[in-house]
Amino acid sequence: MDRIIEVLKDRIGEERLNHTLSVVEEALSLAKRHKAPEDKVKIAALLHDFAKNLTLEESLRLAKEYGLKLDDVTITSTELIHGPLGARMVKEYFNIGDQEILNAITYHTTGRENMTTVEKIVFLADFIEPGREFEGIQIIRAKALEDLDEAIFMALDSTISYLLKKKSIIHVNTVHARNFLLGKRLGENINEKA
Amino acid sequence: MDRIIEVLKDRIGEERLNHTLSVVEEALSLAKRHKAPEDKVKIAALLHDFAKNLTLEESLRLAKEYGLKLDDVTITSTELIHGPLGARMVKEYFNIGDQEILNAITYHTTGRENMTTVEKIVFLADFIEPGREFEGIQIIRAKALEDLDEAIFMALDSTISYLLKKKSIIHVNTVHARNFLLGKRLGENINEKA
Repeated sequence: MDRIIEVLKDRIGEERLNHTLSVVEEALSLAKRHKAPEDKVKIAALLHDFAKNLTLEESLRLAKEYGLKLDDVTITSTELIHGPLGARMVKEYFNIGDQEILNAITYHTTGRENMTTVEKIVFLADFIEPGREFEGIQIIRAKALEDLDEAIFMALDSTISYLLKKKSIIHVNTVHARNFLLGKRLGENINEKA
Repeated sequence: MDRIIEVLKDRIGEERLNHTLSVVEEALSLAKRHKAPEDKVKIAALLHDFAKNLTLEESLRLAKEYGLKLDDVTITSTELIHGPLGARMVKEYFNIGDQEILNAITYHTTGRENMTTVEKIVFLADFIEPGREFEGIQIIRAKALEDLDEAIFMALDSTISYLLKKKSIIHVNTVHARNFLLGKRLGENINEKA
């Protein structure tokens, strides 16, 4: 663990390391609450922003080097690339083979349909760690303690609203994630075959 | 034309026929303004809601009869089915083979990436016809006179906001349409290969 933190400090700098450590704490607390595997949650949370402190140019170059297939929306911003690229990089750097950990890192920004509990917790912990501040966060924090799906639904709505306001691209995985939870809520898994 | 109106009145009722005739008028005015083929625009506008006055059950039964392949989000509501189902039905009823007309009907609710001018006009006319009333519509009406893409972008934002508020499903075509226009605005067609 110390080795990972050493490498991280070097890669993402002290400020983002502080955010990362808050995400780890938040994620472990959610893992305890929802009886999720703490070891996986911890590693995924610790490494979720591994590829964040890179320029778009560097990110695209690395993605190419790793032979990473990225869709045409993902390649438009570091905000969207750093999840999938980070997963690919930590696989290499720390020899992580656990697909659930890698998926939690890949989808921590966009979400996706049918997430596992580990994926949900990393997604949410990143969204609500104590350093975050935005309208409505208190309600999402409270909801995360009792119902991960409902909390994620709120987080997805908040994300889409924010992207609309910023005139930014919306990744379809975010919409798929929301539609999936809506279908689940209605008692039918509408995205199952999508 | 009289025959179509006769059939329409029977199928969709007088109230929706009035909406339809307003859409036709609005669409023809936009077609003149933006030099689009008025004959295509007129037929597509006239028939855009052909499958709207059906229950979800009837819609699904008809879609099955026609062998229509619909994704798992589309099949959840008549709001999403009536476009593609209507296109399939009018093809049969009126022997319409023009794919641009059929696409304008198919995508008039969700939009999609890379729409033709005829598709854009039918989508917008349905959104801003004089009978519509919602916050911000005046700005979209004004924008539609000068820039179809910008007006559609506003309409898509308005649609997504509305669906968020209603806790309703968002079809990915709506998001693809918005991302495509955003990419075009930024001088890069990000959805071209998506």
